[in-house]
Amino acid sequence: MTGRDGGAELTPTGNSPVVILVRPQLAENIGAAARAMANGGLFHLRLVAPRDGWPQAKAWRMSSGADRLLDAATLHSSVADAIADLHHVYATCPRPRHIIKPILTARGAAAELRAVCARELRAGVLFGPERAGLDNDDMAQADALVRFPLNPAFMSLNLAQAVMVLAYEWWTAAEETLPRVLMTNETKVATKGELDNFLAHLTDELDACGFLRNLPKRPGMVRNIRHLFERGEVTSQELRTLHGIVTELAHGRRQLGRLEESEQT
Amino acid sequence: MTGRDGGAELTPTGNSPVVILVRPQLAENIGAAARAMANGGLFHLRLVAPRDGWPQAKAWRMSSGADRLLDAATLHSSVADAIADLHHVYATCPRPRHIIKPILTARGAAAELRAVCARELRAGVLFGPERAGLDNDDMAQADALVRFPLNPAFMSLNLAQAVMVLAYEWWTAAEETLPRVLMTNETKVATKGELDNFLAHLTDELDACGFLRNLPKRPGMVRNIRHLFERGEVTSQELRTLHGIVTELAHGRRQLGRLEESEQT
Repeated sequence: MTGRDGGAELTPTGNSPVVILVRPQLAENIGAAARAMANGGLFHLRLVAPRDGWPQAKAWRMSSGADRLLDAATLHSSVADAIADLHHVYATCPRPRHIIKPILTARGAAAELRAVCARELRAGVLFGPERAGLDNDDMAQADALVRFPLNPAFMSLNLAQAVMVLAYEWWTAAEETLPRVLMTNETKVATKGELDNFLAHLTDELDACGFLRNLPKRPGMVRNIRHLFERGEVTSQELRTLHGIVTELAHGRRQLGRLEESEQT
Repeated sequence: MTGRDGGAELTPTGNSPVVILVRPQLAENIGAAARAMANGGLFHLRLVAPRDGWPQAKAWRMSSGADRLLDAATLHSSVADAIADLHHVYATCPRPRHIIKPILTARGAAAELRAVCARELRAGVLFGPERAGLDNDDMAQADALVRFPLNPAFMSLNLAQAVMVLAYEWWTAAEETLPRVLMTNETKVATKGELDNFLAHLTDELDACGFLRNLPKRPGMVRNIRHLFERGEVTSQELRTLHGIVTELAHGRRQLGRLEESEQT
């Protein structure tokens, strides 16, 4: 996937959750997290005590055009300060903790965040520092924990990858794109009549050239050819191409036949 | 989320798709893609003509322990060579193209990949170079395209982020973690009887201290207190703590009452 040049027009539409990076260590990760947010339609970034200070040019360089998001990020000295105006707070937590708290998958959290935001409540998601994650006091301030279901034998998300998964789930929670469609552009999926028409053309030429000369096997062979073409979603344009191919192939064969006849005479 | 030290034990279990990075430019991205794969339970990496050659130490440094995955990666001169032994090939494609091809969401692709792999067919997913993406000849070799539904105003995934989304969907397609559960550790969600018991204790003490002295309002007040405690999933351990709090608060108040009485005498 490609990067983009220059700052994108990123205008928040509707109420969306705040991403709160708690004591992030690397400015590069802040920038990459902003890029991930913009991809998923998250626009509000808050930073709690970034280790190396703020602002840092390295973040902007890694944001791939999500500049406005970084420009608007606010700086906070504590988690309490960063979440004071929010109604619901979720804390990401990659490893099991010995606490009593609701725990959600990323998809479950995204669905809840959509519901909370639809009620015009302000929500936020805490992400901990790269190495250690959120501490117990950070998590005590959250309504619920979020743990992504991932390979337990290798649970090691980069900070920006973690933000990416959440932002992706936030976006897809409101997406209605069908899981699979045939992209046909200016042509259309062929009707069964168009397909029959082509199969009749093909069968005629296959009769003419002798490909179907074994009469007992002919019905099965014709049916198998039909199975192949009925299987997918052939378009009208593709059928025109196939008509042309059959005509041309048969034409060459006939020319050759005439040539051979004339040689024999 | 945290990084991990040293190579993780990454043993492929079952049949899983191959990730094919086509003409990747930066070794760092190859390493980060491997890290993303390991998180999502993808183990097979193939590289088609990496721009700066292969192997490169920078990839291993960015893989955060997904070493075995990089160690086992194979190098290919062309897409055709990299996919020759595969049965189904999907091509990621962030931007609309003017071609006739089925197009899937990441979730739709993950479901199909699970189905294909369950049939013991070999599947692969092509990811294009960072800047330009896959070219038209690459895409012509694929069964279907995959386009992630993301913010159309800012569609700019880093290569490793794109691999992350697909790996995440691959993993979650076989996940059965409930979207929300209350994590209670060694305690349990309190029964309604335990909750009644606590509410009776609290009401007794509130009667004793005069908090419920307005008798016409008393039933409504008691009900509102019940509403608060019935709302969530209080645990048995939390109820024991609440019993203790009520007892201790009432005890101090009574001590004070006795002190005041003795002062007045």
